[in-house]
Amino acid sequence: MTTMDLAKRYVALCKEGKFEQCLSELFAKDAVSVEAGAPPGMDRTAKGLEAIRAKGDWWAKNHDIHDIKVEGPYPNEDRFIVRFTMDITIKQQNQRVTMDEMALFTVKDGKIVREEFFYTGG
Amino acid sequence: MTTMDLAKRYVALCKEGKFEQCLSELFAKDAVSVEAGAPPGMDRTAKGLEAIRAKGDWWAKNHDIHDIKVEGPYPNEDRFIVRFTMDITIKQQNQRVTMDEMALFTVKDGKIVREEFFYTGG
Repeated sequence: MTTMDLAKRYVALCKEGKFEQCLSELFAKDAVSVEAGAPPGMDRTAKGLEAIRAKGDWWAKNHDIHDIKVEGPYPNEDRFIVRFTMDITIKQQNQRVTMDEMALFTVKDGKIVREEFFYTGG
Repeated sequence: MTTMDLAKRYVALCKEGKFEQCLSELFAKDAVSVEAGAPPGMDRTAKGLEAIRAKGDWWAKNHDIHDIKVEGPYPNEDRFIVRFTMDITIKQQNQRVTMDEMALFTVKDGKIVREEFFYTGG
């Protein structure tokens, strides 16, 4: 699978809300996920697929997604960028917000080995 | 100047169309600029501020900008992403197109040392 094929598959799965399938199908077991800011009580960096899955589970439990817009992929060699615009409610605060963030992915041997999120904390 | 201050200044100057001022004010002399695809007759990579300036001059000569939308900055530590959506005419083909691309910047010692463009060719 080329980087562009993988990138398109990633975007297609996200648009369908199939985040778990994204991880199991497209990520390397030792992939690393880096946030712009640390989530409450967590590190900025999640190392390994299980840690990334745990972060995703935490996120899903603590947010309601009303709408998700996925733009891209924007490729450059073995990397690509995807933009996420999400209309969500942060459950704990019962606060509805729009999240607007960029994700930068690095691909190696046909799998995502690194994802990095770019956004302004708010 | 923090990375976020620099990033905001970059976006503000771009919104005013002050691309030359961006280069002279915010870029390191040995900055590197990397395209997703090589422009006609050029390398993908321009090394040094003079080469980046020459690429910009080439671009300005060969395109008419009707409208430019600049979104961001989206920061993560010493890097930030900016999205450009441009309504342009490619003069040689007299073809009006919308360019949609992401730019990833790396900052060191208060200056941009690397810019990388992400987009789909075509």
